[in-house]
Amino acid sequence: MAPVSPLAPAAFPALPVIGGVRFAAVAAGVRYKGRTDVMLAELAPGTVVAGVFTRSATRAAPVLDCQAKNGGAADGGAAILVNSGNSNAFTGRGGMDAVAQIAAAVAGTLGIDAGRVFTSSTGVIGEPLPWDRITAKVAELRDNLAPDAMAGAARAIMTTDTFAKGATVTVQVGGQMGGQAGGQMGGQKGGQSVRIAGIAKGSGMIAPDMATMLVYLFTDARIGHADLQALVSSINARTFNCITVDSDTSTSDTLLIAATGASGVDVTGSAAFAAGLEQVMLDLALQVVRDGEGATKFVEVQVTGAASDADAHRVGMAIANSPLVKTAIAGQDANWGRIVMAVGKSGAQADRDRLGIRFGDIWVARDGWRAPEYSEAEASAYMKRQELVIGVEMGIGAGRATVWTCDLTHGYIDINADYRS
Amino acid sequence: MAPVSPLAPAAFPALPVIGGVRFAAVAAGVRYKGRTDVMLAELAPGTVVAGVFTRSATRAAPVLDCQAKNGGAADGGAAILVNSGNSNAFTGRGGMDAVAQIAAAVAGTLGIDAGRVFTSSTGVIGEPLPWDRITAKVAELRDNLAPDAMAGAARAIMTTDTFAKGATVTVQVGGQMGGQAGGQMGGQKGGQSVRIAGIAKGSGMIAPDMATMLVYLFTDARIGHADLQALVSSINARTFNCITVDSDTSTSDTLLIAATGASGVDVTGSAAFAAGLEQVMLDLALQVVRDGEGATKFVEVQVTGAASDADAHRVGMAIANSPLVKTAIAGQDANWGRIVMAVGKSGAQADRDRLGIRFGDIWVARDGWRAPEYSEAEASAYMKRQELVIGVEMGIGAGRATVWTCDLTHGYIDINADYRS
Repeated sequence: MAPVSPLAPAAFPALPVIGGVRFAAVAAGVRYKGRTDVMLAELAPGTVVAGVFTRSATRAAPVLDCQAKNGGAADGGAAILVNSGNSNAFTGRGGMDAVAQIAAAVAGTLGIDAGRVFTSSTGVIGEPLPWDRITAKVAELRDNLAPDAMAGAARAIMTTDTFAKGATVTVQVGGQMGGQAGGQMGGQKGGQSVRIAGIAKGSGMIAPDMATMLVYLFTDARIGHADLQALVSSINARTFNCITVDSDTSTSDTLLIAATGASGVDVTGSAAFAAGLEQVMLDLALQVVRDGEGATKFVEVQVTGAASDADAHRVGMAIANSPLVKTAIAGQDANWGRIVMAVGKSGAQADRDRLGIRFGDIWVARDGWRAPEYSEAEASAYMKRQELVIGVEMGIGAGRATVWTCDLTHGYIDINADYRS
Repeated sequence: MAPVSPLAPAAFPALPVIGGVRFAAVAAGVRYKGRTDVMLAELAPGTVVAGVFTRSATRAAPVLDCQAKNGGAADGGAAILVNSGNSNAFTGRGGMDAVAQIAAAVAGTLGIDAGRVFTSSTGVIGEPLPWDRITAKVAELRDNLAPDAMAGAARAIMTTDTFAKGATVTVQVGGQMGGQAGGQMGGQKGGQSVRIAGIAKGSGMIAPDMATMLVYLFTDARIGHADLQALVSSINARTFNCITVDSDTSTSDTLLIAATGASGVDVTGSAAFAAGLEQVMLDLALQVVRDGEGATKFVEVQVTGAASDADAHRVGMAIANSPLVKTAIAGQDANWGRIVMAVGKSGAQADRDRLGIRFGDIWVARDGWRAPEYSEAEASAYMKRQELVIGVEMGIGAGRATVWTCDLTHGYIDINADYRS
């Protein structure tokens, strides 16, 4: 068991009860011993579920199943079941059978349609999922369902995570946004209040270029499927799609959001709701980076002045994924030459002689050359911080993007040279 | 000073004299102390020089200069000067001035046109090149020029390399190819004989997706510039473009080939010459992988059955660049699930249910599922070897590619967390 990441938040947030959702977790022994490894979320009738999924060509059976079910009728109740320890990926026809068995057991036990049971699996790839260990526990999960048990669900889905990840916000629709992600409800200044809370897992195989890791979001807001799907897809592009730990995209990346409507507040077209949802999604995305395998530094890469936003994102990701940049950060070395290298290989339009680079507010290079005021001592002192900003000014346009990553350390090698065995 | 890579060849090959080329090396103190760091190759009048270069958008001044000079008239003599310790990359206008100063000094000393002096620089990025330390040594270099000094030149261009890299072959044009890369001349069975020899440097920042690291090839064959350029570009795509150490593309990648014509043998259109050149280039490319920073395993990735050769290359590179695959190899873990992941993220067309994976001749997965005969013990035993083959059968077409890489170890972190300081 790895020690908790030095970049972890001080505490798991107090998550509110979301009307229309109940949670349970159980130890089914899928792979791990002595810990919970299956979570169930029961969703009240009328709950709208939307999602974003990996575009990996080798995506796992439960991902394919979720995609097929996304957008289905929301009349009856619904459920989300997630296991850790085994990803049910690259498991052939047997993989889909395992998903069907689990969905049928949950549907039968909760009295809902199997087409409304969404499942995810996370853990080792290529091993048959012992689904019978999970179905044997579904009745126990039902008996333990409770509205205030979301934190236990967050713990049950962990794999190499060193801390559970949760975030929440309360939104005043028609009023102002209150509260903070990871904090309690804020003051209610007019309007009607809606709650959003979510949990996530992930710390390695993180480069969700198209989707995300496992993320589950719950809200008591009322919103239609098309609006909810459009909102979550759009925000995903600015949050989970902008993080990377190791450039490796999972076969299981899944984000599901469930809107129960229990608050009675319609949030269709609400900018406040969109902002609140983005706050929770960004908070969870950054927690995934903060639990990057072996991470000792949290790094924000800010790219400005690119030919387009897409080019800026390309540059940011090239920097954030470069092993040479990430090892330099681990070594607290202000090695900006490696940032120049990453800009050059990114494929984005670049003019070497307009390029500027800064660490925090310290400009180390400007106009394609070492900044006149550059001080190695000052830059080196900055690199000793735990939270770093790398700024790149491309000097050719208005495109901008921000991405987040962590450093590459001996800890990453330790974890991944023997994770499976 | 890192110990010599465990994957290094047993010995540096005996390189032949190439008629029309003389070499010298000197300790100029560009950055390193107590070792040679500048090499000069003098090329006889009429020598044809061609090259392949990085497409990095932030490429170094000497690369831009070589590109401008490539294809110029070959009437007079020519020269190649290379320094290690400083890459003269991202050095603004001063970078081009430094190249011009060095070229002028070489041209003046050798009595040739400065437009025929090709230079390369390798080492730290972003520091001004102390060109005066180099120009001060040009007369000494000229005085030391010798036909049999190529090995010394190979040593002078090393940076984090743990061994010098050389390869050679002798080709019978109009006859059969003799000798082996890295070996001596073979028997001469008819035809006329032509020699090819080359040196290279590189061990980190190796992902020459468009060109290569520093590579210098010399031959006494006679061939025109257009033919030589076409040949070297084509072979480059199958050799240096198929290796990766860490996915990071250098700002200085340069391959230059000089054909002196001293043998009097015209090799235009000769398949034997093309095969010999490919043998030397592949040998040098694999030596670069064998000196991959921190490497303990040499890995060949063979991709077959892809929709196209380009897709096969994409899959091979996704596997070879995956930190999770590379750390699993370091840990001697037969973690084929990570290979499935890399196939999935590669962007290549793939059908999960037709995919097969093998380690050497051991099939671990077939038709999208663990192979029935799979034995964890057998696969684990295979992974303890120093030289590994990973085979991926995509099962959808005739596209194929082979790429080469090494593992990702604590040694890589050690080297790169403090290379600059």
